[in-house]
Amino acid sequence: MSKETKVNAAILIIGNEILSGRTQDTNSQTLALWLNSIGIKVTEIRIIPDIEVEIINSVNILRKNYNYLFTTGGIGPTHDDITAESISKAFGLKYEIHKEAFKILEAYYKKGEFNEGRQKMIWMPRNAELILNPTSGAPGFSVDNVYCLPGVPSILKSMLGGLKNKLVGGKPILSHTISLKTVESEIASSLTDVQNKNKEVEIGSYPFFQAGKLGVSIVIRSENQSKIDNCNSQILKFVNEKKIEVVDR
Amino acid sequence: MSKETKVNAAILIIGNEILSGRTQDTNSQTLALWLNSIGIKVTEIRIIPDIEVEIINSVNILRKNYNYLFTTGGIGPTHDDITAESISKAFGLKYEIHKEAFKILEAYYKKGEFNEGRQKMIWMPRNAELILNPTSGAPGFSVDNVYCLPGVPSILKSMLGGLKNKLVGGKPILSHTISLKTVESEIASSLTDVQNKNKEVEIGSYPFFQAGKLGVSIVIRSENQSKIDNCNSQILKFVNEKKIEVVDR
Repeated sequence: MSKETKVNAAILIIGNEILSGRTQDTNSQTLALWLNSIGIKVTEIRIIPDIEVEIINSVNILRKNYNYLFTTGGIGPTHDDITAESISKAFGLKYEIHKEAFKILEAYYKKGEFNEGRQKMIWMPRNAELILNPTSGAPGFSVDNVYCLPGVPSILKSMLGGLKNKLVGGKPILSHTISLKTVESEIASSLTDVQNKNKEVEIGSYPFFQAGKLGVSIVIRSENQSKIDNCNSQILKFVNEKKIEVVDR
Repeated sequence: MSKETKVNAAILIIGNEILSGRTQDTNSQTLALWLNSIGIKVTEIRIIPDIEVEIINSVNILRKNYNYLFTTGGIGPTHDDITAESISKAFGLKYEIHKEAFKILEAYYKKGEFNEGRQKMIWMPRNAELILNPTSGAPGFSVDNVYCLPGVPSILKSMLGGLKNKLVGGKPILSHTISLKTVESEIASSLTDVQNKNKEVEIGSYPFFQAGKLGVSIVIRSENQSKIDNCNSQILKFVNEKKIEVVDR
């Protein structure tokens, strides 16, 4: 494992619909790819139900263990949207109307459409900072190192751009993939040797099936391109010696 | 929330490739749907890196907090496959050659193909019970209430059938979905009323975009079909009154 990465994050997905299997979570991958690209390494993901005490406990553990915590889900207008109130309780902050959010939604909706349900979405922890929502008006928010985003994937994606300047990442984590027409057991011992000689890069080995064929993708990850290149050469050396075919993937 | 469900489970996804965003996790959804169908409610999912201390800590917390724990990933032949050894340490069991697994793989591979890498896959916690693998030979295993499955989705799926008789579930969790051409804020307050009158069912509200149109899926979940039906009637009542269109989804 690389010891160089200084900035890390956890993701907390709040939603019974993911735990039931009804909905496939894609927000984790969206956030992980994006955070890694700005030098923030995702180190843990948790998926929990819409239950206040579970949200409070998870938030309080994860915000202390990692530089950043990103939550998704539970900030809409219905009864099962309890993230904002739970975050208030996790921080011991008053849950109240956020004046700026009120102004944004008052301007966003036509007269008469800013109804009771929608007004729920302006209740936030005191002094929360808003995360603007270019898709559907209702903002997300942050408190300290906790960033609360909606669960609808397309809306979440549209909000990341506005978040970028608020986050401080380390060096982006670079990666290189070598895909091989082989099975893991053929390369296991050579790959272990390379990992042992290159302790500062992270080498992962992932079997795949593609069009009925077995293969292995080797992924080299580091903040340092020359360390990746070194490692890549050492892997290609044994791949050539073993006469294993490199494939596109 | 329903208080009726007696049997619950956590899922622990072990794999840097999920945290980096390189690979979309689908094993959580596969397991969640399958477990729910046999009356085991998934209550927490965690995704953690291939780091021994993280695996040990997560396993020891989750196996105590839930009836079952299912892990995926890290049981192959390469250096980053450390699940079996970590589980041994979590339970304080010797990590050793499993004689039955040895026999299975010796028979599975041709002479000379049962190499060092493959032999790693017969090392398990002492007295582990095997989970047979009809796809690629190498078995998973269970220790106490912890079930360790591979990370490759197609292999994992093929192993669930053999696992069914080992698990004791409660009543299957039933669900009914009503999809509406509306926005959440239009129904939020009526839906809250229905949830308050039906505390033993779980009602979720999930906005969606489909072919550019906004909609909301209401999901009613319970072990009891007549409670779902009651709740469904109450929802359809306000849906009709509000002249909201019900849509297929």
